[in-house]
Amino acid sequence: MQFASPDALERARRVKLMLFDVDGVLTDGSLWYGPSGEELKSFHSFDGQGLKMLGSSGVTLALLSGRSSPAVSARAAELGIDHVLQGVAQKGAISESLIRRLGLARESTGYMGDDVVDIPVLARCGFACAPREAPEQVRKRVHYVPAARAGAGAAREVCEYVMRAQGTLERVLGEYLE
Amino acid sequence: MQFASPDALERARRVKLMLFDVDGVLTDGSLWYGPSGEELKSFHSFDGQGLKMLGSSGVTLALLSGRSSPAVSARAAELGIDHVLQGVAQKGAISESLIRRLGLARESTGYMGDDVVDIPVLARCGFACAPREAPEQVRKRVHYVPAARAGAGAAREVCEYVMRAQGTLERVLGEYLE
Amino acid sequence: MQFASPDALERARRVKLMLFDVDGVLTDGSLWYGPSGEELKSFHSFDGQGLKMLGSSGVTLALLSGRSSPAVSARAAELGIDHVLQGVAQKGAISESLIRRLGLARESTGYMGDDVVDIPVLARCGFACAPREAPEQVRKRVHYVPAARAGAGAAREVCEYVMRAQGTLERVLGEYLE
Amino acid sequence: MQFASPDALERARRVKLMLFDVDGVLTDGSLWYGPSGEELKSFHSFDGQGLKMLGSSGVTLALLSGRSSPAVSARAAELGIDHVLQGVAQKGAISESLIRRLGLARESTGYMGDDVVDIPVLARCGFACAPREAPEQVRKRVHYVPAARAGAGAAREVCEYVMRAQGTLERVLGEYLE
Repeated sequence: MQFASPDALERARRVKLMLFDVDGVLTDGSLWYGPSGEELKSFHSFDGQGLKMLGSSGVTLALLSGRSSPAVSARAAELGIDHVLQGVAQKGAISESLIRRLGLARESTGYMGDDVVDIPVLARCGFACAPREAPEQVRKRVHYVPAARAGAGAAREVCEYVMRAQGTLERVLGEYLE
Repeated sequence: MQFASPDALERARRVKLMLFDVDGVLTDGSLWYGPSGEELKSFHSFDGQGLKMLGSSGVTLALLSGRSSPAVSARAAELGIDHVLQGVAQKGAISESLIRRLGLARESTGYMGDDVVDIPVLARCGFACAPREAPEQVRKRVHYVPAARAGAGAAREVCEYVMRAQGTLERVLGEYLE
Repeated sequence: MQFASPDALERARRVKLMLFDVDGVLTDGSLWYGPSGEELKSFHSFDGQGLKMLGSSGVTLALLSGRSSPAVSARAAELGIDHVLQGVAQKGAISESLIRRLGLARESTGYMGDDVVDIPVLARCGFACAPREAPEQVRKRVHYVPAARAGAGAAREVCEYVMRAQGTLERVLGEYLE
Repeated sequence: MQFASPDALERARRVKLMLFDVDGVLTDGSLWYGPSGEELKSFHSFDGQGLKMLGSSGVTLALLSGRSSPAVSARAAELGIDHVLQGVAQKGAISESLIRRLGLARESTGYMGDDVVDIPVLARCGFACAPREAPEQVRKRVHYVPAARAGAGAAREVCEYVMRAQGTLERVLGEYLE
């Protein structure tokens, strides 16, 4: 791990809903444009496996993106992510209403975001994470920064950290070992 | 930062128009070809956020590219960049005429370019920038070289440097913190 | 090489069938999504050359992927790989039945995989390999970890290691030197 | 530079025809497959600028690829490369016949290749180059290995090295400085 606040593990232990930003969190931040606008996004198999394991451990998963892209919808469907909020201008308000709708407390919510537009959500959530590539204004406000790069294992590391905090990692990994 | 000349901050303070080359500045220089020629370009979310903030701080933005690509037009439209000059063979002359058309002095203009074809513009502008990947012939002629890689935060760093020089960064960032 | 167990060379010497996972082994793990789902995969010329040489040395080649993609079929056809097993949910069982169908012993089989879903196959094979990017749970169960990155020479290194163990590398390389 | 043999500069001075392999030399070796096979190649603006300058200095340019791709044809046309030989199984024989057709001596020919299939050409040419990523079997047979990575400036460095050896670099660069 790159950084964990003294209370990060305790905060991760309480997470029932984990939200992830998309660009710069599940991707490396690259936006691939063709003639008709944005066309491709590159996700990583390690992160997908982490999201699947975290979901099967009992944590609810959600994506929260300022942009809107069918590539994200396709990836989310494949991973079985329930809540996919795209084209979100005011991330703070939208995350708030999702948390309320699910009947959760803020302390039961985690978020991983990478830029200044994510600060309002990071400030609201019990467990705030950012990738190591995030600007310092963002990194200094979070509880956990994984060692792997965004779009190449950073989200996987967050997922395993939450499962380790909640004591579910060994059981979930066991399912894969037959 | 990688490099800043002693007068870089003072030069950045005067910038009213900031021009950016595209390939190797807003991208990592990769040119993606398919069967019918160039097809894709990869921009970065950090740079996009930087350009948006610099624009909202009051600086006029322009793109100046030797190549011509609908992917650039799509990205520029999304970011609200007013002046998009593509397919420019003589960058020096074209930048000169844009500066004149906007009624600006050279000292009020900044440019970020990455190769020898950009030297005529870099030589004309008050605040000249290049990415760290630029050849030495280019880097030795500029006032500022950001630490982040081209296509992955280099332009963002230039944008924040200008806003810091002009005392607008805190106000612009504040808008994102609600 | 990054890591080789004391018996790795002896294990590689016995390999008659070499299986490779695709994502994170023949690619860097990136999954490229467009509007209609996964669209592109990036393989590497070094790995392709390694697979061709290993095949021409007399070792049978197979791909074993949890996902399913026409890009993999196209690449496999080009490289002349005989056995291409895609969309495999239970990798352990499927690899077992391929090994039986080919009338081989487990000790004559090698596998390179990169994530926890690959552990059942790695545990079954005589020569188990993983890329350096694999999680520690995977790496600690294998006999060989090449130095090159996944999707950029890691599989090539495994292929050359097997040929070196079997004393076929010089002859196969000789074919290319005219 | 990474490596130059004691006679590299003298060898580069004699080059009248410079051949380049494509995959792993003008690209980073990645082969991008979609449903219908290989679809994209990523070239670099630095390399393109180097090829243009070397051509305008008076050296004849050629591409020599074992694969065949319309992306290569499109890129070559844009750069004004005269000789584009694709789908070449026997690179040694084909390069030999091109050299003869152009009425050149072997010592007047340079080649940059990255894998074992390139060794027959590298052995025939007066000035042999390989990228730093090439396997050791290849690198140990060449006169020059540039510092920049393949597909990200390695070919540019070779082009500038030849122009420096021939005393044409300053004149060619001067054309870009207006």
